[in-house]
Amino acid sequence: MNQGGTVGTLTRAGELFQIFRDGQPRTRAELVALTGLARSTVAARLDALTVLGLIGPAGEALSSGGRPASKVAFQPGSQVILGVDLGATHLLVGLTDLSGTMLAQRRVSAEIGLGPEAVLDLALRQAEELLAAAGRKPSELAGIGIGLPGPVEHASGKPANPPIMPGWDGFDVPGYIQRSYPTEVLVDNDVNIMSLGERAAFWPDADELLFVKVATGIGSGVICGGLLQRGADGTAGDLGHVRVQRGAGVFCRCGNEGCLEAIASGPAIARVLNDAGFAALTGEDVLALVRAGNVQAVQAIRQAGRDVGEVLATCVSMLNPQIIVIGGSLSLAGEHLLAGVREVVYSRSLPLATSRLQIVQSRAGAEAGVLGASRMVSDHVLSASMIDAALNSTASTD
Amino acid sequence: MNQGGTVGTLTRAGELFQIFRDGQPRTRAELVALTGLARSTVAARLDALTVLGLIGPAGEALSSGGRPASKVAFQPGSQVILGVDLGATHLLVGLTDLSGTMLAQRRVSAEIGLGPEAVLDLALRQAEELLAAAGRKPSELAGIGIGLPGPVEHASGKPANPPIMPGWDGFDVPGYIQRSYPTEVLVDNDVNIMSLGERAAFWPDADELLFVKVATGIGSGVICGGLLQRGADGTAGDLGHVRVQRGAGVFCRCGNEGCLEAIASGPAIARVLNDAGFAALTGEDVLALVRAGNVQAVQAIRQAGRDVGEVLATCVSMLNPQIIVIGGSLSLAGEHLLAGVREVVYSRSLPLATSRLQIVQSRAGAEAGVLGASRMVSDHVLSASMIDAALNSTASTD
Repeated sequence: MNQGGTVGTLTRAGELFQIFRDGQPRTRAELVALTGLARSTVAARLDALTVLGLIGPAGEALSSGGRPASKVAFQPGSQVILGVDLGATHLLVGLTDLSGTMLAQRRVSAEIGLGPEAVLDLALRQAEELLAAAGRKPSELAGIGIGLPGPVEHASGKPANPPIMPGWDGFDVPGYIQRSYPTEVLVDNDVNIMSLGERAAFWPDADELLFVKVATGIGSGVICGGLLQRGADGTAGDLGHVRVQRGAGVFCRCGNEGCLEAIASGPAIARVLNDAGFAALTGEDVLALVRAGNVQAVQAIRQAGRDVGEVLATCVSMLNPQIIVIGGSLSLAGEHLLAGVREVVYSRSLPLATSRLQIVQSRAGAEAGVLGASRMVSDHVLSASMIDAALNSTASTD
Repeated sequence: MNQGGTVGTLTRAGELFQIFRDGQPRTRAELVALTGLARSTVAARLDALTVLGLIGPAGEALSSGGRPASKVAFQPGSQVILGVDLGATHLLVGLTDLSGTMLAQRRVSAEIGLGPEAVLDLALRQAEELLAAAGRKPSELAGIGIGLPGPVEHASGKPANPPIMPGWDGFDVPGYIQRSYPTEVLVDNDVNIMSLGERAAFWPDADELLFVKVATGIGSGVICGGLLQRGADGTAGDLGHVRVQRGAGVFCRCGNEGCLEAIASGPAIARVLNDAGFAALTGEDVLALVRAGNVQAVQAIRQAGRDVGEVLATCVSMLNPQIIVIGGSLSLAGEHLLAGVREVVYSRSLPLATSRLQIVQSRAGAEAGVLGASRMVSDHVLSASMIDAALNSTASTD
């Protein structure tokens, strides 16, 4: 076979693999019918993918006579991914397979302000213990995904002027991690990653999805046309500093007046309740009051939902999503926050844009970040071009 | 060569062609270096593309000795595209080549309310005359793109409850056109198409672009990640019915209160000026007053810019575009409208999202629709999969 033939076969193996990502086992005959490729071509590509461990035998097809055809399928357990979700005061590390199934996870307290080396060392320690407990070797890692609670330059993986992360600005997170694990390391902000996790785990067919985090801060992840949109400078989804009507006269930590975050975040609601004489300093205190049935707390959180809804109404007109997922700690207040969001979005948007719109609470909950970090890595390493690159480097070192 | 080999060669010819869409001539050796394919594979694929007329000889490379290498390049003149821009009171038909270069155009008056058959017949007559004058045969048409002044179900090409288009709801526009020209016919709303045209002609590298039309109505086209986003129900970009602060108490033709369109569209500004005693009934009247230096008209249009900017500030936070293009008839008021938009967007958005943001007037102007309709067609018919389909059907009828 000439060089072109070999490269051709390898190049297209990555594309062929994409068919398997749905997890369905398939026979060679099915793949021939699906792709129009010759049986010999399919066989060569499956061989290449088998060498990488990405596919393997998966039983036999029912036969109407003669020798039953063997099936092959994606082997998501052939490698593992570490997903790391760093919050302001805790970190969560999860070990998943290539399809995003959570194998094990650990949550520990950690102040992000301790700086990158201390926090990342702590995360690496959890990772090491998770791998050991699962009996997986570092060489089986397909990659590591990391979510940070602040803006990140996605291409370099470096935090960019993060407000609550002293010492992290410009720190080479991938480089630091790769000293321990020389593998793919991808970094993004926590909300982008949560939106990937929520979609992968619960709404895989939703190509138009907004994920809104309402917690100490307010932000969102924007999925349009099936892809996470980061915008020209990586700031897409930054809802927290949109000006809202009720914010007139309220100053935000960003220096502007009337930002959504200044009136609808956990600390903002706590301040209002505190001023009204209730013991509330944080979002958690607000949740406790809501759970205890405190009427003012319920009203305050519903009003926060309306404020969020005011901004989302514009987003609905602009992006026409099919689903808006509300996550973050304040979404744990259940229907109160959602009711406020729905009240405003459905009354302010054109009927055509909301006729099929769902506004729901996050289902991934606290796992959204880790699942999304894993998905960010699998989308990258299982892409056609990355698989082909892996095959080419295998071929060239033969 | 076996069947699989043939299909493989054909399948990848569409991909190879994408390299040529930048218009640069290339030698076979350059293509081998660029793709990693064997020289014989490149030759076979170029042969296939040559049969379709999509590429052809383009001179010789400078040689450092020996026989000079011949170059091949995209032949955008091998086929033509008709772009049709239907407005409320006029229609514009343009003939372009495959790269979107305008070859000829005609503009005639036509009331959209005359209904689809009368208006489309008029457009078809212009098309026929344009083809004849350019000496091109209908068989040389790669496709026809059409923009309509109302919502369109893009997949079927049918208008969907268009407010200003009596008789058009659900009309099979592609089917009607294909009775005269059996070719690809794609339909979308005018603002989506204008955004494609503006980007193709003037901002080809801008993957994050908003195009805002301010005229009798207000709407926008949303380009994210290099792709036009239509949303879950095709309503993405519908800015005109977002509620704005200054709209309190003003009712919109959509039935809601406070819509942007109810206070910042051409008719809305005209009404305000009319109430102040000036002869203004339409957006054109407003423009005439602005051009005559009428202070109230200038102030009114600047305020409309601020109102548009109020909505765009949220869009900037959400989508982080690198460029916002303001088009539509009111943008002809020059800097006054833009000044209002800029004033609000730059003061209300986070510095990171606006540090590189440009807010500019449309350059494509009245041609944006026709250029975009052409681009919609060329993006479709020159896609890798459509070229491969054309090659496969050629191969199977051999």
